[in-house]
Amino acid sequence: MYKAPVEDILFTLKHVAGLGPALEEGALGDLSEDLVDAILGEAGRFATEVVAPLGPQGDRQGARHEGDGVVTLPDGWADLYRQWIEGGWNGLTAPEAYGGQALPHMLNVAALEMWNSGSMAFALAPTLTMGAVDALTKHGSEALKEKFLHRMVSGEWSGTMNLTEPHAGSDLGVLKARAERREDGTYRIFGQKIYITWGEHDATENIIHLVLARLPDAPAGTRGISLFLVPKFLVNDDGLLGARNDLFCHAIEHKLGIHGSPTCTMIYGDGRFGSEKGAVGYLVGEENKGLACMFTMMNNARLAVGVQGVAIAEAATQKAIQYARERTQGKAPGHSGEGMSPIIDHPDIRRTLLTMKALTQGARAICYSCAYATDMAHHTEGETGRHFAERAALLTPIAKSFSTDVGVDVASMGIQVHGGMGFIEETGAARYLRDARIAPIYEGTNGIQAIDLVTRKLPLSGGQHVRAYLEELRAVAADVAARDDAGFGRTAAWLEIAVTDLSEATAHLMAELAAGRMSEALSGATPYQRLFGLTLTGIFLAKAALADPGDGGREDRVALARFAAENLLAETAALKVQVISGADSLAAAGRLLA
Amino acid sequence: MYKAPVEDILFTLKHVAGLGPALEEGALGDLSEDLVDAILGEAGRFATEVVAPLGPQGDRQGARHEGDGVVTLPDGWADLYRQWIEGGWNGLTAPEAYGGQALPHMLNVAALEMWNSGSMAFALAPTLTMGAVDALTKHGSEALKEKFLHRMVSGEWSGTMNLTEPHAGSDLGVLKARAERREDGTYRIFGQKIYITWGEHDATENIIHLVLARLPDAPAGTRGISLFLVPKFLVNDDGLLGARNDLFCHAIEHKLGIHGSPTCTMIYGDGRFGSEKGAVGYLVGEENKGLACMFTMMNNARLAVGVQGVAIAEAATQKAIQYARERTQGKAPGHSGEGMSPIIDHPDIRRTLLTMKALTQGARAICYSCAYATDMAHHTEGETGRHFAERAALLTPIAKSFSTDVGVDVASMGIQVHGGMGFIEETGAARYLRDARIAPIYEGTNGIQAIDLVTRKLPLSGGQHVRAYLEELRAVAADVAARDDAGFGRTAAWLEIAVTDLSEATAHLMAELAAGRMSEALSGATPYQRLFGLTLTGIFLAKAALADPGDGGREDRVALARFAAENLLAETAALKVQVISGADSLAAAGRLLA
Repeated sequence: MYKAPVEDILFTLKHVAGLGPALEEGALGDLSEDLVDAILGEAGRFATEVVAPLGPQGDRQGARHEGDGVVTLPDGWADLYRQWIEGGWNGLTAPEAYGGQALPHMLNVAALEMWNSGSMAFALAPTLTMGAVDALTKHGSEALKEKFLHRMVSGEWSGTMNLTEPHAGSDLGVLKARAERREDGTYRIFGQKIYITWGEHDATENIIHLVLARLPDAPAGTRGISLFLVPKFLVNDDGLLGARNDLFCHAIEHKLGIHGSPTCTMIYGDGRFGSEKGAVGYLVGEENKGLACMFTMMNNARLAVGVQGVAIAEAATQKAIQYARERTQGKAPGHSGEGMSPIIDHPDIRRTLLTMKALTQGARAICYSCAYATDMAHHTEGETGRHFAERAALLTPIAKSFSTDVGVDVASMGIQVHGGMGFIEETGAARYLRDARIAPIYEGTNGIQAIDLVTRKLPLSGGQHVRAYLEELRAVAADVAARDDAGFGRTAAWLEIAVTDLSEATAHLMAELAAGRMSEALSGATPYQRLFGLTLTGIFLAKAALADPGDGGREDRVALARFAAENLLAETAALKVQVISGADSLAAAGRLLA
Repeated sequence: MYKAPVEDILFTLKHVAGLGPALEEGALGDLSEDLVDAILGEAGRFATEVVAPLGPQGDRQGARHEGDGVVTLPDGWADLYRQWIEGGWNGLTAPEAYGGQALPHMLNVAALEMWNSGSMAFALAPTLTMGAVDALTKHGSEALKEKFLHRMVSGEWSGTMNLTEPHAGSDLGVLKARAERREDGTYRIFGQKIYITWGEHDATENIIHLVLARLPDAPAGTRGISLFLVPKFLVNDDGLLGARNDLFCHAIEHKLGIHGSPTCTMIYGDGRFGSEKGAVGYLVGEENKGLACMFTMMNNARLAVGVQGVAIAEAATQKAIQYARERTQGKAPGHSGEGMSPIIDHPDIRRTLLTMKALTQGARAICYSCAYATDMAHHTEGETGRHFAERAALLTPIAKSFSTDVGVDVASMGIQVHGGMGFIEETGAARYLRDARIAPIYEGTNGIQAIDLVTRKLPLSGGQHVRAYLEELRAVAADVAARDDAGFGRTAAWLEIAVTDLSEATAHLMAELAAGRMSEALSGATPYQRLFGLTLTGIFLAKAALADPGDGGREDRVALARFAAENLLAETAALKVQVISGADSLAAAGRLLA
């Protein structure tokens, strides 16, 4: 059973991501280390004792569409949700004016990891609500905020994001949902949306949908999309619920995983509730600026999905290690005497488990570092603020894509460690793979993240930002070399190679971009993204190993950093090759797909 | 929808695996190319038109345990099985004396690929029956063969393999099922077996179980295991079915995939059918030599599982390409004018699809080459026979492990190409991943294959066999270089590097073995196995590209070989690093798992 790794999480936050120095310098206001420890300790307890035990049940039973727009959550989940909001977990980062705690994003990201390890399907509810709160906070009118935010921050009402339509997924510019103006300043929304996470359920009395739609006179494409708040039940001025709005859940999807999370097809404005046709909507932000509103919250949402990858990887790794300790089979090298060895003693199983551990901790460090940059951007101004905003922007696609790939890979390795048991659903290892598999897809596929990384993030500050970051990474390699600790083995050399590979690949892509060779640049985008993530994994594990807070864990961290450097980082050379010289053969082989 | 790639399959058999020259030289008796084409053409039609359409249904409905030992197949599957045996497909390679066609193994492997692409869950039935036929043919007494083989070769009766017990999976030496001698020369079998594929079902009137069990006076460990034939219904001397034997299916597993295939827990000898306790069994081979009997058929079974990986990869690739052609989203580089591009025009999707194609065809070539070696070993004698037997032995673990890993990876890529649709079960892409995930586990986990490859296959002929094979591979690289065809790009150079990496890794492992450093050798076994498979992929794709039978496909094959060499083979250097210098850090990091 999953046990929240609160110590590992706190260590990564403080000694790798940057929370420790930030606390010392008072960069995050009056937040104290004791409060951080207390909050995450309690989150860990809740994730371990309350959320995780209900994960398997949610998977087996799944959310059910009862017809007539009614969706029922798995047994126990409505109560779980109630406990969740009573714990105050929904409003960690939300503004105090609306009942939130205005804590750093880092804490929420760390807590999210633990909720997701317990049950990714469950954790999607607050993830979506937090996204809606974020968008509304930044772009909603005061009246709208006053009416809706309090109960969304508390979690009393949940929130959703309605973006996708059948023909409009990665490319939102072609969406067709339409909005009509009314004289009272409200709008009426019509259309169909698909893949709406927690679009309907029985855990909250109201659901607040944020919906992208197009006004009749809107420009074509992405500049003609507006964002609307469309509640399931209208809210009277006294705050009480009013009429049912003209929207409903038509069906829910039968999915590979996250069965407890209802993925809804939503219909807006078909008049089924007897009212005038059209779902009542309220404009968020300006007309035709809806996509810009979404983009301001997209970084947080993408990071939250990256964290899902970390969460699944952590849970899968724990489960595999536990099984490998208990299961005996064969005799490992060096085993003498009677009986069989625990399979954890077999070198192949060891290699797998250590790879799982290294990738998980690397992905965690990347996600937390991204959250740190977001927080620092929020708490600083001018050049410094811009620096951290760029850092967060650069790290976001890597955090999202690398971590979600790690989630899938590590979950698959976890099944393998279990042997035949891994394929049996009751064991629980398979659920991790099924749940993990969506994360590289939604919130922008990892291929879209790679395009974002190469075409929008590398050019930040004319390329200076990423170049400076590469030098920061190189400095970590130099610190390892300077430490002259035999425990590190050849770690410093491998880190140096990885950073050099990443630097060369970066320079190549920037040259392609500068020359307008877009197809060539994009041909290498995905291997480049992985190259970046893998290099960061090596660097961050080394950074963790360099720290020594006297917790007795240093030697373990050195050993893991060395394992990662000497085994996983050799892949950076291969990825560099794909980035730098893969485009020609990719183009030549296009004929096979014609 | 899946369409059997008969042309690709025939090309690989003839021009890569070696069937073409073998036919020309008459090495396979009077088998003609026309007959090969006709058989595989018809197999392709059957797989495409009859098997594949029932795959999704089998997955959705699954096999059902109705209680009381009764298992019902998905709707339509009993009829599908009837059509299958009427087509004569079950006996392709079986001895003519028992109604088989005694055709080369290569043809059966190619046909198996197509059945598995149609439905891996369905294809498991004949796969297991063929394995039982194989074991019985080689080790059964004449009386046993006469009584059972005819109807097993026809498929009228299906067969199973009963090896695993809850505590005995990879390590069969500790199995506990027991056998007692009876004065009439028969035995009585008692015990529980798990994970018995197609252990019970309603498609055949009898099921012939091959069961490993231990006699009371047997030596401990693997040298005390005997093999028994234990039919569901006893068979009278007139061939009619007699009494129900004392065995039954206690439960079936709820699995991640292959839902149509009943995975049974079998109970032997609990007396539930009112007879004297103990299932009547007949000894196959000699007492206490059961494991040796299993080993003679294990190569074929392992190859058959490898083929499952190829099959899933092929089906997943076809599906992804089809979707990527139809789905439009965004504008690819160079797209001008109105509308969106088919996603197949986006470089990232292209890279994914070409990777899927290259890995699938590489794995296919490895499996078929292994089948070729098996056939040639069967059709030749003396030194030549031994050479081919060693070749088959060497290639078997690679065919099993590399291909099944490819099956999982390619199925996962296929989901990614489908975006959100890939996560929806109705689409069908997710089924491929769910089905594929068992193949790296059963019939010896891929970790076990790696141990076999390093500790038993590399030492064949004192290491001479693998060394000679490496020179054969190097010759292909030289042939590409000599061709001086610009279409190959830097293919020759990358092949040369890959073979060199593989050679160095091989020499390293053989030195570790010679020095008795078993733990160090095994630490690198899995990356070595992948290194071998990846190198073979590059070499075999190049070999395919060198052939020019005038079918108009040469340029496509050259482009794919180049893509694989210039993009995928860069990984060989990383794998070599893991093999050669990964062991120290693996050992040092053991402390994290203590």
